Parts: sequence; structure tokens; C-alpha cells
Amino acid sequence: MALEYEKQLATHETGIPGLVVVDLSVHGDNRGWFKENWQRAKMAGELGLPDLRWVQNNISFNVERGATRGIHAEPWNKFISIATGSVFGAWVDLRAGSPTFGRVYTCVLDSSKAIFVPRGVGNSYQALEDGTAYTYLVDAHWSLELKKTYTFVNLADPDLAIEWPIPLDQCEISEADKNHPMLEDVVPMQPKRT
Amino acid sequence: MALEYEKQLATHETGIPGLVVVDLSVHGDNRGWFKENWQRAKMAGELGLPDLRWVQNNISFNVERGATRGIHAEPWNKFISIATGSVFGAWVDLRAGSPTFGRVYTCVLDSSKAIFVPRGVGNSYQALEDGTAYTYLVDAHWSLELKKTYTFVNLADPDLAIEWPIPLDQCEISEADKNHPMLEDVVPMQPKRT
Ligand SMILES: Cc1cn([C@H]2C[C@H](O)[C@@H](COP(=O)(O)OP(=O)(O)O[C@H]3O[C@@H](C)[C@H](O)[C@@H](O)[C@H]3O)O2)c(=O)[nH]c1=O
Ligand SMILES: Cc1cn([C@H]2C[C@H](O)[C@@H](COP(=O)(O)OP(=O)(O)O[C@H]3O[C@@H](C)[C@H](O)[C@@H](O)[C@H]3O)O2)c(=O)[nH]c1=O
Repeated sequence: MALEYEKQLATHETGIPGLVVVDLSVHGDNRGWFKENWQRAKMAGELGLPDLRWVQNNISFNVERGATRGIHAEPWNKFISIATGSVFGAWVDLRAGSPTFGRVYTCVLDSSKAIFVPRGVGNSYQALEDGTAYTYLVDAHWSLELKKTYTFVNLADPDLAIEWPIPLDQCEISEADKNHPMLEDVVPMQPKRT
Repeated sequence: MALEYEKQLATHETGIPGLVVVDLSVHGDNRGWFKENWQRAKMAGELGLPDLRWVQNNISFNVERGATRGIHAEPWNKFISIATGSVFGAWVDLRAGSPTFGRVYTCVLDSSKAIFVPRGVGNSYQALEDGTAYTYLVDAHWSLELKKTYTFVNLADPDLAIEWPIPLDQCEISEADKNHPMLEDVVPMQPKRT
């Protein structure tokens, strides 16, 4: 997929409150390219994204086109972007009491497009290219015990009707992700206790 | 290059004070792999790296094996790691008054090995694979004006005698990086005014 260079840094609404797509400025040259993946003053300042302290930076690498992960709503915020390759991403509002509970947003992300995913919005993606590296920042520490507090929903739920570019039965998916409940059986994520 | 999975998180000294190599734990599975690239509690807590607030996350992408960048000492700290591919990295102490001023450390970084580079230590790398994506976190904002305050040294300086795996005359290098001074003409980086 051809990468678009020198886009103006900008945000786009998605129909799910708090879920915000971000155009990144990628600078190409003789060596390859360079980008600011996150830049606090510009993104939290000018663009108005939440000014969070990121405590983890994670990378998932997908060997083959089609690898699919999700749908995971976790008790923290995420800023997601692509180091190399591209993904089809799907997000589902799983927040208790949200007026858009169950709403789905999908789009393609490459290295010039990032997304801010608020706590309680389910996250998933399918790699569209071999060797896709997916990076994200989160504002709380992951632990195996905390997994009990996630809200999961099934990638294949017909009610969500996500049109995965590569049929899921041809994709590498973890055992855990094959067994998540359908939306009607999901326990919505409660707001953070303050 | 074959990636080593499930290494124990650990640090290694380099002979340059404050420059610390970090073994990362990469988890492989049917989809590819997953790693915590930075994890504040483990790295700043258990491993004893400085507990910095990262304000930028940058990615540079190198189309071809051989692309070489550096040597740049900047007025901020960096935590560097590899999303995909591998690099030969070279670091030079350029801090005014440092007992190891001019000392060079080199090593290969792949996705399972990161490095903490303190303010004033010159940073450079050569991509060892086509399509190498290099990511880093910094604790201060970059700007074009601040470039005047960097300390640069030449990749080809015979006094540094860095043994680049791919000869520099066969490599993509920026015009700026071809013209940096030799070590003997470098103005060392002064400590941060507090
Ligand atoms: C998420 C995570 C996993 N791990 C470990 C646990 C496993 O050994 C390995 C893979 O974990 P899994 O849960 O199978 O990864 P995964 O890739 O299926 O999970 C991810 O899916 C994305 C769609 C979500 O947005 C992410 O937030 C995360 O949930 O990595 C960490 O060490 N730290 C972490 O932060
Ligand atoms: C470093 C940087 C560059 N840029 C822009 C300026 C240029 O248009 C483009 C490429 O910048 P250059 O300085 O040529 O990138 P570069 O890849 O030669 O510079 C890098 O080299 C590494 C060895 C250092 O460790 C890095 O800290 C950085 O100095 O990206 C930013 O927008 N933000 C930044 O933080």
C-alpha cells in the first residue's frame, strides 16, 4: 500500500465518542521515512487528545497477512499506530451506559494514520500485509490478573457484522479470541471508579 | 536474523556510564509475536532505568539494508528499540567533562534488544535488513530550532574507527550526516542547566 507523505496533522471523528482517528505527518527521503508517532505538545495540546502519561509501549508483530486479534476492551486508554504494513481495524463501543453501546467503527490504518481508543471501547485488527508491526501506547500497566476485568466480544458476531477483508476461517487467530461471547451476552465495561 | 524468544528482562553495562542495553522478553505464537517495548514499573522500577515521562514516540523506517543515520547527540534521553528488522548501532560519549568522552560502544539490536541512551551520548545506526523499523521514546520535544544545540560527529571518523558492517560509501546517508565534524573538532555537549 502506498504511504501518503506530509499529511497535515489532524483528527477525525468516528461516530463513537472519544474514539478519534489521527492523520500523522510522515516525512519521506532517500533512506525511507521518519514520523512522530506521538508528540505530546501537538497531540494533547493542539489536537486536544487527552494528555495522558503513557506507561507502556507495546508492539505486536504479524508474520502473515490475515492474522486477526480482538475484540478486547481493556481498562485503559490506547494510542495505536503502525510501524510498518497496514491493518483493517474494527472498534466497538462496549461502555456501560454509553448512548452508542454496540456501535462499530472500521477503517484501514497504515503508518500515516493512528487512532486514540478510549477505555471501554473494544479494539481489534486484521493485518493486511505480511510483516505488519502494530505499536501502541497505554496509560496503565497490563497484568495477567487484570485480564479478568476486560470486556471481550466475538470477532465473528453477526450482530456486529464486521466485514473483515480476509475471511476469518482463513486467518491466524488465538484460541482465546475464537471463544469470546456475542454482543448480546457481553457484560459492558463499567466506568472507572474515582 | 532469528529472534530469541522469552529472554529474561535484564540490563547490561556498556562501558559508557548511563548507556544501558536491555534484553526484552518477546512472546512468540501462531500469529507472530508480542512484546512490551517499554513498561514503566518493570523498567524504571525493577531494572532501575530513569523514570522519565516520554513525550515523543518516533519511528524511522529504512527501505534498504545499509541506510545509516547519525551520529547525533541530542539534549534529551532516548529509549530505542526495533519494531522489525535489525540494526548495527554505534554510540559515542560526547558529554563535556565525561571521563569516557570519545569512547565508542557498538552492538546489534533486533526486536529483543533495546538501549537507553542518555542525553549527550551520540546515537547512530545502520539498518542490517531491508524494511527495518526503528522506534524510540524521548523525554523532551524535538524542534528544528533545537537542532543548533545538538552535538554531531562524523560516522566515518577514523579516530572513532567504527566497523560498519556495510561500507558507508555503499549506504544511503542524508546530506547532513555526510558533513559532520570529526571528534577532534566537536564541541562537547554541556550538562543540562538546572
Ligand atoms: C497485552 C499484553 C500481553 N502480554 C503477553 C501475554 C502473552 O504472552 C502475549 C500475547 O498476549 P495476548 O493477550 O494474546 O495478545 P493480543 O495481541 O491478543 O492482545 C492485544 O490485542 C489487541 C487487539 C489489543 O488491543 C491489545 O491491547 C491486546 O489485548 O503477550 C504482555 O506481556 N503484556 C501485555 O501488555
Ligand atoms: C528527529 C525528528 C525529525 N523530524 C523531521 C525532520 C525531517 O523532516 C525528518 C527527518 O529528520 P532527520 O533529522 O533527517 O532524521 P534522522 O533519522 O537523521 O535523525 C535521527 O537520527 C537518529 C540517529 C537519532 O538518534 C534521532 O534522534 C534523530 O536525530 O523528520 C521531526 O519531525 N521530528 C523529530 O523528532
